[in-house]
Amino acid sequence: MSLEQGCVQVYTGNGKGKTTAALGLALRAVGRGLKVCVFQFIKGGGRYGEHLAAEKLAPLMTIIQTGRPGWVNTKDITEDRHIAQEALARAEELLTSGLYDLFICDEINGAVGYGLIDVEQVLGLISSKPEKTELVLTGRNAHQLVIDAADLVTEMTEIKHYYKAGVPARTGIEM
Amino acid sequence: MSLEQGCVQVYTGNGKGKTTAALGLALRAVGRGLKVCVFQFIKGGGRYGEHLAAEKLAPLMTIIQTGRPGWVNTKDITEDRHIAQEALARAEELLTSGLYDLFICDEINGAVGYGLIDVEQVLGLISSKPEKTELVLTGRNAHQLVIDAADLVTEMTEIKHYYKAGVPARTGIEM
Repeated sequence: MSLEQGCVQVYTGNGKGKTTAALGLALRAVGRGLKVCVFQFIKGGGRYGEHLAAEKLAPLMTIIQTGRPGWVNTKDITEDRHIAQEALARAEELLTSGLYDLFICDEINGAVGYGLIDVEQVLGLISSKPEKTELVLTGRNAHQLVIDAADLVTEMTEIKHYYKAGVPARTGIEM
Repeated sequence: MSLEQGCVQVYTGNGKGKTTAALGLALRAVGRGLKVCVFQFIKGGGRYGEHLAAEKLAPLMTIIQTGRPGWVNTKDITEDRHIAQEALARAEELLTSGLYDLFICDEINGAVGYGLIDVEQVLGLISSKPEKTELVLTGRNAHQLVIDAADLVTEMTEIKHYYKAGVPARTGIEM
């Protein structure tokens, strides 16, 4: 099957649940036989639970990780920007191939926030979306122009977070 | 593997992404070999994409649907309350069995909001949680006492929604 109509969804805000909401969409879509690509920006640091689970859902689900191990070097973004720019070109190629019903650009808003990708490039990506492909963009601080270009925008707001109570990131829950 | 420490998470608010965030958590946990139960309240109406996908992730992932087909009869909640009360007893039995590392009570906040489950019963469920089990509660209008009892609370706020632009619920995305 394929979608009749593809929209643009944005999950942003400082709360937990942006990437996981996108992963949940991926799970539901795979259940319906849709083809899904989860394309992760600035997430080169190791394999998380979602990568291991994706193997169980192949070939319908593909996860691609890009970025350096560790986090963005905010003092000198040269290398991170280079990697993100190459990743963006690859994402655009995969998106426009029309091979995927659901295409998730995870943390692309973060990549824009760090200056690794220009907001005009994200708008270009959005406008290159095949009509029947659902495009999902995640990451905090979504640019207003991206929000304007989206059909659905949800903000995840942190009301209470256990990190502040000293609970560390846990394997299987946060990663 | 199992979790060292299980917390209580709440996903609430009027925005899209509460159930899907819980499903994404389930996917990540399954990737790590954790055992997951997604227990759905007031969602008896047909099989969604997540139910079909869960089969691919069995035996680590189990989804249980409860509730009448259709939506809650708000004019006379007698039957819905009876079903929800039976469901709650079953959920508590499964939760306290300790068989699951991640236990998701999907739409339990909605069941409270409709008067099908009392908030004191949800607090009882929370306090019966095994130490190493992660408990996730979803649904809009989470009760303040539930928020107080949780370790992590995220509110999903609708900034823009395509339903208002006339896009219908789509198989593989919304269901």
